[in-house]
Amino acid sequence: MRLREAGEIAFLGALRQALAGGGPSVRVGPGDDAAVVDCPPGRSLVVSCDAAVEGRHFRRAWFSEPEIGARAVRSALSDLAAMGACPAAALLTLIVSPDEEVALAQALVEGAGAAAAELGAPLVGGETVGSAGPLTLDVLVAGFVRSGRELRRSGAQPQDVVAVSGTLGDSAAGLAALTAGLTGPEAEAVVRRYKVPEPRLALGALLTDCEGVHAAIDVSDGLLQDAGHVAEQSGVAIELFAEALPLSPAARVVARELGLDPLAWALSGGEDFELLITVSGPEYGRVQHRARRDCGIELLAIGQVSDGQGVSVRRLDGTSGQLPSTPGWDHFRCG
Amino acid sequence: MRLREAGEIAFLGALRQALAGGGPSVRVGPGDDAAVVDCPPGRSLVVSCDAAVEGRHFRRAWFSEPEIGARAVRSALSDLAAMGACPAAALLTLIVSPDEEVALAQALVEGAGAAAAELGAPLVGGETVGSAGPLTLDVLVAGFVRSGRELRRSGAQPQDVVAVSGTLGDSAAGLAALTAGLTGPEAEAVVRRYKVPEPRLALGALLTDCEGVHAAIDVSDGLLQDAGHVAEQSGVAIELFAEALPLSPAARVVARELGLDPLAWALSGGEDFELLITVSGPEYGRVQHRARRDCGIELLAIGQVSDGQGVSVRRLDGTSGQLPSTPGWDHFRCG
Repeated sequence: MRLREAGEIAFLGALRQALAGGGPSVRVGPGDDAAVVDCPPGRSLVVSCDAAVEGRHFRRAWFSEPEIGARAVRSALSDLAAMGACPAAALLTLIVSPDEEVALAQALVEGAGAAAAELGAPLVGGETVGSAGPLTLDVLVAGFVRSGRELRRSGAQPQDVVAVSGTLGDSAAGLAALTAGLTGPEAEAVVRRYKVPEPRLALGALLTDCEGVHAAIDVSDGLLQDAGHVAEQSGVAIELFAEALPLSPAARVVARELGLDPLAWALSGGEDFELLITVSGPEYGRVQHRARRDCGIELLAIGQVSDGQGVSVRRLDGTSGQLPSTPGWDHFRCG
Repeated sequence: MRLREAGEIAFLGALRQALAGGGPSVRVGPGDDAAVVDCPPGRSLVVSCDAAVEGRHFRRAWFSEPEIGARAVRSALSDLAAMGACPAAALLTLIVSPDEEVALAQALVEGAGAAAAELGAPLVGGETVGSAGPLTLDVLVAGFVRSGRELRRSGAQPQDVVAVSGTLGDSAAGLAALTAGLTGPEAEAVVRRYKVPEPRLALGALLTDCEGVHAAIDVSDGLLQDAGHVAEQSGVAIELFAEALPLSPAARVVARELGLDPLAWALSGGEDFELLITVSGPEYGRVQHRARRDCGIELLAIGQVSDGQGVSVRRLDGTSGQLPSTPGWDHFRCG
């Protein structure tokens, strides 16, 4: 049955059944005028929203419907990770043609709901709107952070170490592998990183408890662009070391198969959703140790903060070889 | 300049300047990965989202760009009013064609930001996405309510008085007046109700402090449909009295000019954003008095709750005349 025939009320009723309705802190879940969530004491509210548009952020050919919903939620939650917030709730606005099947919308919401529940942000409500435009999911996430300990983009200080979690460029490698139709274990590994991003929530929360962490951002637009946000908002310069950027073995293999330079993916690919942080030098080792011990996440030093402005990339091998250069993600220019 | 040429970063920079950035409770405003807002003690978080799509919820011919932004925010805040929450912050997701002018997007955001600031929910962030579809604004609102005192749809009890604030049907009358090109003071009055909805935030907050208020909803889909939500979620029947429904003098005049029955607007028009509540009989007079004294708002008794299910409308004059019947707003079926 199509949405046009089922009507919104029937659809919402079905959705309500599909949603878990939250955990112990959810006082009012889906179905009322708004959702109500308990605030833990000593915490501040953290809110963000993130939209995924068909053709720009996903293609139906590459994703099942639950995967589309889940990816939208996972991407949105990365913003909470970048602030060091613990997720508390999510809302989903689904903008969908009335000519679509009810089953499609239900599968989208079920995928979103499952991912949200898994990551601690129960889907407590949302909105469905019929529209002739492309299928669009706008995800709102709310969480809480210890008041005054939120991670900011604006606190980087000269002499800070610039570090990043995990590996960079895998998501772009996955997109390239999908586009080229590559198969094999390495292609599957990076495709999975593209399709199922992992917001670094535990790491973000841990960092709010570490001394010396001065700035943080999630790598969503691409390393160069996101480092640029930190540099600009902190009033500092950031130098990145090309050879230090963490590339996964899978991304290297996929790049070789495609005859491409994986460094371009690491610098500009975006949607890795790793955390980029700046940490005071004397504290960096301790932070790195705690990330490994408490979250099982490797932090790697990839650059340094200094007086000045802008982002530059240095080749440590002393060559002045041309860096692969592409702009980061721009919602108006690219796609 | 078009958005495609300006790029997202330039656009976001301009937006940041346009936004007030919040009040004293906003720790982190626009420009970081997420916004951070202080939580008042003893309060629960209330969150909701509401989308406005060009061609379905507004037409550019009838609204200036700031009015479109303001209306989206005002409509969204009505959900907080219906829960009795005080607004704290708003986020705007703007889904807009890259071929639109930067000035259009800025005017939308400025209108949204001004309305949000006026109503106590500073615009603390958002998201812009290029899309070929219709211009769409998705507004997320967050507020706080005294824990355990939130107004629910589900608490109506048999013998409760059903009451509504203000007048009903004006928004539909305004839409009809715009469509027909009516002029004159009455048409202007209802057009204003359509274009500049007034979320009943002060009344909602007051009701959380009143004994005997068992259920509340905002009249957004139309009285019949919204009363139906309360009846269904409370497991009760609601009877409405046709002659008791509050029609404004302006709506009556416009209806007469158009040869229409204003009762249809009151029953099914929607988007009045008045509050529909059920109150225990013995407390009703006190609640009505406080609404008048503290908020300057008239509550009118329009029906009664009883055992059973569904919503019915009785003509008090004893006739069994046919009621004007139209369905309430349905995001998939109508528009």
